[in-house]
Amino acid sequence: MSAREDSLEQRSREAALTDEVVASFSTARDPRYREVMSSLVRHLHAFVRDVRLTQDEWDIAISFLTRTGHMSDDLRQEFILLSDVLGASMMTVAVNSPARSGATESTVFGPFFVENAPLIENGDDIGAGLSGRPCHVSGTVRSVTGEPLPGARVEIWAADDEGFYDVQRDGAKLAGRAHLFADENGDFDYWTVQPAAYPIPHDGPVGTLLDAAGRSPMRPAHIHFMVSQEGYETLITHIFVEGDQWLQNDAVFGVKESLILPFSEHPPGTGPGGRRISETWSSVRFDIVLATSTDD
Amino acid sequence: MSAREDSLEQRSREAALTDEVVASFSTARDPRYREVMSSLVRHLHAFVRDVRLTQDEWDIAISFLTRTGHMSDDLRQEFILLSDVLGASMMTVAVNSPARSGATESTVFGPFFVENAPLIENGDDIGAGLSGRPCHVSGTVRSVTGEPLPGARVEIWAADDEGFYDVQRDGAKLAGRAHLFADENGDFDYWTVQPAAYPIPHDGPVGTLLDAAGRSPMRPAHIHFMVSQEGYETLITHIFVEGDQWLQNDAVFGVKESLILPFSEHPPGTGPGGRRISETWSSVRFDIVLATSTDD
Repeated sequence: MSAREDSLEQRSREAALTDEVVASFSTARDPRYREVMSSLVRHLHAFVRDVRLTQDEWDIAISFLTRTGHMSDDLRQEFILLSDVLGASMMTVAVNSPARSGATESTVFGPFFVENAPLIENGDDIGAGLSGRPCHVSGTVRSVTGEPLPGARVEIWAADDEGFYDVQRDGAKLAGRAHLFADENGDFDYWTVQPAAYPIPHDGPVGTLLDAAGRSPMRPAHIHFMVSQEGYETLITHIFVEGDQWLQNDAVFGVKESLILPFSEHPPGTGPGGRRISETWSSVRFDIVLATSTDD
Repeated sequence: MSAREDSLEQRSREAALTDEVVASFSTARDPRYREVMSSLVRHLHAFVRDVRLTQDEWDIAISFLTRTGHMSDDLRQEFILLSDVLGASMMTVAVNSPARSGATESTVFGPFFVENAPLIENGDDIGAGLSGRPCHVSGTVRSVTGEPLPGARVEIWAADDEGFYDVQRDGAKLAGRAHLFADENGDFDYWTVQPAAYPIPHDGPVGTLLDAAGRSPMRPAHIHFMVSQEGYETLITHIFVEGDQWLQNDAVFGVKESLILPFSEHPPGTGPGGRRISETWSSVRFDIVLATSTDD
């Protein structure tokens, strides 16, 4: 055979192997499992073929995945971090939150959400015990056609100005997180502290990956939101602090242009709700648009 | 916007995310790392997009990978099993052992190789202490142009007729494995026991995967070979026992038609080398062709 025939035979052998492995999932009881695994096999095989993965590189991959598993426990989820830094988490968000005319964009959920955060009233302060500049957050929840959505549930959580969430502190007392309900005009507001940028945990295999890539582990400063209302798609998103130096380099690819908002700086004096403030404070306005619920 | 424009915007958002993640590896110091990670990201993202992976499925994947890591230690490598049953191990073998005119085909290395197996002479018996029917293995090592390759190193290892390798037995004493050198005519031969089919370990996450797929964990009976000679590509392969019921269903996709050989059955009497045998025995002939070494 000629070199060209060898090469054709080689391609044909590789394609036949992929077909054989895909076919092995044809006996799966669940059609969705069959669909997902067939696609996984096709893409995994295409990756190995495209880069002509060497045996040494395969060994490195096995060892990397093993260390990632050993690093993961109830407090530290290294596989979630891996999914995050490879953009797989954000892609999963993207395919589950399709672009809908005029609705606020989604981003990653992150690992720091806590169930049953306290219910607060509009105007309350959830910054007690957190270090940082006082920050007033307000906005209106509306439908895509512009009607206010009274009673929409707004859940918020954020880090402090040292980049730590309450749950990352020893003897963690809940702070910087709460839920509230929009008023009869769809308006909501609360006080907190302005969050800071922080690094994702990077002392494990994912840190090694970022280092080899010449990438930073930093995330730009942000506040998490989860907004829900009967009949509308639940929105999971952040708002980002305009001007943050990491906006172009979020380690988990969560930033979207439309979610970057100005946090205005104000001198000491009287703030919203007549609050007297003896230090510099900031404010941000986040108007939220929920998409109508669909079955897709 | 119309639904069609929404769908275009959606596709464009997803594609932009992939580009952003790929670009994040552009700062990698090692160009090969950059190449491998860029391809990995593209295929991983394409998988998530193609199947429209749900958040629940993503959770299941994270949990599966975590359990796979926790199951892996010095004695049990669940990620290798995972790679095996997804055909990724076999595809890595395929891309590293390209089809070459007339050369013997390769297959997976497997987890049961041991360094420094004993050196034996042609005609020796490595079946001592193993249960099973006596089996004589012989062949000639040649180049693709048909010249015998005297002094070629032939390394062999196999399970016994209960499907266990020596290293899987308590207080393991090496058995069923050795290396020898082809004689001045390129010929080799040795005695062992005929191996049996066996299941890969299937009490972990990979067993769950196989079960959900309706797949068997069995591998057909085989003998491992690693054959090397200066100036030639090292060959890693198996021979399979013709007629084995699992040949069409190897859990790790290692079977190739050309590697299935008849193990002939013989009545008690005199075997090769004048050996007197008081029970039924078998014999197999495996002629090996090594490809000339290349730099690819």
